[in-house]
Amino acid sequence: MSFHIPETDRPRIVILGAGFAGLALATRLQKSRFQVVLIDKNNYHQFQPLFYQVAMAGLEPSSIVFPLRKIFQKKEQVYIRVTEVQRVDLERREIHSSIGALHYDYLVLAIGAKTNFFGNENIARHAIPMKSVAEALFLRNAVLVDYEKALITPDYEERQGLIDIVVVGGGPTGVELSGSLAELKKYILPKDYPELNTDEIDIYLLEGGPALLPGMSDKASTAALRYLQELGVKVKLNALVNDYDGEHVSTNNGDRIHSKKVIWAAGITGNTVAGLPSDAIVRGNRIRVNDLLQVEGHPEVFALGDIAYLETKDYPKGHPQVAQTAIQMARHLARNLHLDKPDEWRPFRYKDLGSMATVGRNRAVVDLPKWSFQGFFAWAAWLLVHLFQILGVRNKMVIFVNWVWNYLTYDQSLRLLIKPKAPRGRLESELIE
Amino acid sequence: MSFHIPETDRPRIVILGAGFAGLALATRLQKSRFQVVLIDKNNYHQFQPLFYQVAMAGLEPSSIVFPLRKIFQKKEQVYIRVTEVQRVDLERREIHSSIGALHYDYLVLAIGAKTNFFGNENIARHAIPMKSVAEALFLRNAVLVDYEKALITPDYEERQGLIDIVVVGGGPTGVELSGSLAELKKYILPKDYPELNTDEIDIYLLEGGPALLPGMSDKASTAALRYLQELGVKVKLNALVNDYDGEHVSTNNGDRIHSKKVIWAAGITGNTVAGLPSDAIVRGNRIRVNDLLQVEGHPEVFALGDIAYLETKDYPKGHPQVAQTAIQMARHLARNLHLDKPDEWRPFRYKDLGSMATVGRNRAVVDLPKWSFQGFFAWAAWLLVHLFQILGVRNKMVIFVNWVWNYLTYDQSLRLLIKPKAPRGRLESELIE
Repeated sequence: MSFHIPETDRPRIVILGAGFAGLALATRLQKSRFQVVLIDKNNYHQFQPLFYQVAMAGLEPSSIVFPLRKIFQKKEQVYIRVTEVQRVDLERREIHSSIGALHYDYLVLAIGAKTNFFGNENIARHAIPMKSVAEALFLRNAVLVDYEKALITPDYEERQGLIDIVVVGGGPTGVELSGSLAELKKYILPKDYPELNTDEIDIYLLEGGPALLPGMSDKASTAALRYLQELGVKVKLNALVNDYDGEHVSTNNGDRIHSKKVIWAAGITGNTVAGLPSDAIVRGNRIRVNDLLQVEGHPEVFALGDIAYLETKDYPKGHPQVAQTAIQMARHLARNLHLDKPDEWRPFRYKDLGSMATVGRNRAVVDLPKWSFQGFFAWAAWLLVHLFQILGVRNKMVIFVNWVWNYLTYDQSLRLLIKPKAPRGRLESELIE
Repeated sequence: MSFHIPETDRPRIVILGAGFAGLALATRLQKSRFQVVLIDKNNYHQFQPLFYQVAMAGLEPSSIVFPLRKIFQKKEQVYIRVTEVQRVDLERREIHSSIGALHYDYLVLAIGAKTNFFGNENIARHAIPMKSVAEALFLRNAVLVDYEKALITPDYEERQGLIDIVVVGGGPTGVELSGSLAELKKYILPKDYPELNTDEIDIYLLEGGPALLPGMSDKASTAALRYLQELGVKVKLNALVNDYDGEHVSTNNGDRIHSKKVIWAAGITGNTVAGLPSDAIVRGNRIRVNDLLQVEGHPEVFALGDIAYLETKDYPKGHPQVAQTAIQMARHLARNLHLDKPDEWRPFRYKDLGSMATVGRNRAVVDLPKWSFQGFFAWAAWLLVHLFQILGVRNKMVIFVNWVWNYLTYDQSLRLLIKPKAPRGRLESELIE
């Protein structure tokens, strides 16, 4: 096996990762003087902001992910390869994966971030992360199976472990997940499981800091807290998780909660690839770049998005690890690369467009740079912005139909336990890994 | 653990299997004098006729399966349990599963059929069956992965194994699958994989008998053959598969085809449950019933659908194993059970409503009892009948949007490789099995 990519006169730019940054860059270079090689371990782009809706059975994975080959259909200068790059060789200008080695003229590291368990091996083994649709699907299945089991579990204490759910981390993911879990409990479970006493179900949200949605305005934090409490979520602030053994979570406040499902949305750390100079790797496993987004000493190597660490006067601790940063960095780099002379390149400047989070039906919070609002209009704005951002007309249509349906019927119809089943002689793992 | 189902004055009817037969019966008994317990190993009902569209990435699993709990929301006399029944005890009137034992007053065996590999262990290990959405999803993923691999496989012979696909069995499933594989090759792969020479791809359909669609009219068989040949499918009649080792299929005609994907739709055999009298089990593992659908000697035990073997004057070799038989048997049994006096029960009579199969865009065949037609109108009829039969308004809407979209764009957008990902400490298998 080899990468099997033709050698041409065009300079080759290899992009690792097809998240917001990698995809935005590849799209803008598809008709350029470059040969573009886009590499990801999945054959699709994932729209992270809606993972929680997949987990809650409100949307299908196919609505929020998009096949890379479809995005680049008929783009002859874009080559897609589905593989995981283990190592880069900056001296020989090569990347290495199980497929083989590939030479690059320019290399873009857009490898993103993964869940940070802060070194706690127990938590890493047992908690459910929320950084891929695959993990969101696992959570969906786990919730459904555990409620089936709860029905046939007469022991109260054992049943608590099956039905109570703990969300760790009060950022947007944690707020959105715990809010929609509370709605699941309120609107759907009583209809689906009339045999179950849904009053027994507790949804916990544990946040290590003193407020929810750190980084957003006080008004947003306060409103999110109120919304969640109205929905019956047990929010605990200043609650740091010490340990989780798959059955019980313990916190620094002495709390001990029995739950087989702990969702870990408490932090991220950069993905790693071997071969980078050690002084380029900084806090949170991020890769330090200059304001042209280049890795020091390697003007042909760039880092973008969550993995990039750029210090500026306005952002002395690096830029926020959000979709907007990734997209703006990618657009900026594309503009620079389109210029022939490197001395015309311009430094990156981040433009804060604001941030938002939704808690549930008619409840969301929005911070714009100079204005912040909450409630129904924030919720409508959240829906519009996300519908607008999702790729593809078909996806937009299907999501819209699902949202209207779910809103009108107070229901989500996708409560199905399905996974692909392989013939005995052929492992499913052989396919995916 | 126990089944945890209350004892009431109502007689308890336990239905094993939520396929067409089990579901139709439970639906008709939901407001009756019975306590209904519906047991299936999945938490959903599957709409088998559209599995092949899931496999071909035209539809999502969620469009063609329906959560059982949603169907029976607010039906207080219907209890759903997700488990696999291993054994029945006809003397003590009990069923046994890993949950425990449950007493019944009436037992309905609607356990359906599985793929028949005719005892060939090699084929069973390596071929891909098409009897569940889970298997359809596996095929979808396998096709996508193998085309990715083909791109980076320079060796022609090795590449053939990855891109050629063999479908075994010329019934509706085989015809529909090979037809849509041919359309995938024609309309989609050239756009997705411009680097691949799609002329190298061969789709084979092997049928052991002298004609396609056995059981349908000669006109239907001939038209289906012509349509498939027009689409470029290599149809081989009188071709019996001798063996398949995961790489090469060999037939009685001396053919040897290199393919890593052999789809086995060549026959079915009844699912088994221990504890039935051995003389009740007949050819094809079916359970012999009288014309009241009762198992001989056990008037409180019934069998319905694919698993039931009922000989009548019109059907001396048993009734056809199709959805219509299952649904009609279930409706009939429900009518009988609604009568108080067993001596008012009436014998089952099958009404043949005809059969149909689709080959591709604008191409299908329909046999009505006194009329048969082919082509565009048959295709439109096929779409309407299947859209009408699928459960649920939301499913109908989503399927309709997808079909219109796929028809207009010559495209299917769901070409995604996704499976749930479990935390290391919690196996996915723990959830599903």
